[in-house]
Amino acid sequence: MNVELRRAVVLVSGGLDSATILAIARDAGFRLYALSFDYGQRHRFELEAAHRVCEAAQVERHITVPLDLRAFGGSALTDDIAVPKDRSESEMSDGIPITYVPARNTIFLSVALGWAEVIGAMDLFIGVNAVDYSGYPDCRPEFIAAFERLANLATKAGVEGAKKWTVHAPLVSLTKADIIRRGLTLGVDYALTHSCYDPDSQGRSCGHCDSCQLRLKGFAEAGLTDPATYVL
Amino acid sequence: MNVELRRAVVLVSGGLDSATILAIARDAGFRLYALSFDYGQRHRFELEAAHRVCEAAQVERHITVPLDLRAFGGSALTDDIAVPKDRSESEMSDGIPITYVPARNTIFLSVALGWAEVIGAMDLFIGVNAVDYSGYPDCRPEFIAAFERLANLATKAGVEGAKKWTVHAPLVSLTKADIIRRGLTLGVDYALTHSCYDPDSQGRSCGHCDSCQLRLKGFAEAGLTDPATYVL
Repeated sequence: MNVELRRAVVLVSGGLDSATILAIARDAGFRLYALSFDYGQRHRFELEAAHRVCEAAQVERHITVPLDLRAFGGSALTDDIAVPKDRSESEMSDGIPITYVPARNTIFLSVALGWAEVIGAMDLFIGVNAVDYSGYPDCRPEFIAAFERLANLATKAGVEGAKKWTVHAPLVSLTKADIIRRGLTLGVDYALTHSCYDPDSQGRSCGHCDSCQLRLKGFAEAGLTDPATYVL
Repeated sequence: MNVELRRAVVLVSGGLDSATILAIARDAGFRLYALSFDYGQRHRFELEAAHRVCEAAQVERHITVPLDLRAFGGSALTDDIAVPKDRSESEMSDGIPITYVPARNTIFLSVALGWAEVIGAMDLFIGVNAVDYSGYPDCRPEFIAAFERLANLATKAGVEGAKKWTVHAPLVSLTKADIIRRGLTLGVDYALTHSCYDPDSQGRSCGHCDSCQLRLKGFAEAGLTDPATYVL
């Protein structure tokens, strides 16, 4: 198979990590098929960032699948629960955060698998990270390996094809500073990304939620200034 | 853990198989949490049947998650492609049918996993069948086992809990006639179910699509009359 023609489905939230994996997948020679979810988020800035990031990465196609999990309850990102602010690192790493979406990465990868099957891709990219999200079972390499095994049993392509599924998680063991450095060498414009769980009405980041804190710390450790706009 | 209090998430399409697994799960002592999907089907009769079937099985709760996969293309159930009629058994078992939804069972089980995590269930029921759907990779016992393994790595409950996830697929090796006989001993009213891929405007079954043919053959083999209403 011609390397230039290989397609990959890339999960894109619009955050820093997903912008980086788009660049990594592109650099590896894949044609990019970007997949985002509209899962009843409280704000639209994330989806707008996903659109910008995909445009910058020159993806072949970007689809947003509506997946409303509000019927479940159970997460600050899908319910009307206050987003926690200014938590210490030990608080952040202690247990499952309120922002957790149940079985999130399993659901996202499953839908990615479905689309990939339709377009003839055998490669999926996901920006999970086991360093900053050590409390999330579905951000670990063991989870990724188990999903890859499942994919090879779940699909015609995996069972009968010459090629097997690969789930790429290139950020899994990187620190946020490493991720940022890697992205910058690949030309990622992080000003396009959005990470905040609780932006103001103009989309400016709060600077205090877990996601903002991790991001700011990453830029600081890399000796750089975050180009995102924060509420003063 | 008290057996009476155990909860199970049961995937319910409104067809014959899902009505049977609801009865089996109930008979096994589970409190039933039924999950259906509105994935852009061409007709609403399936969802109406799911509602009737859940009511008859006295489920604790029934939710329908909207999951529009039309952005993918690739299936007669989600696109405007003609449903094949009057195919022979060898035609039906030859390759992936046009009615195939890519990665369908992986996606359905993933969402079931998410809901189960929220309500504290560790048991999922799915009506897959490897006899009539031998061409579907995600209807085989190996797939079910791989999903169970994934669930135990993907969730807090699976990683840390005393109990592991169980994916029940009680119909996997039964013929359609066996399924019907099993359901009838448990009091299932198959008149409530809907199987046809191509009903008329009043919801009457066509009698000629793959699903109708399998169903009619099952009732015939069980020496029974199908209570569904067919177009004359």
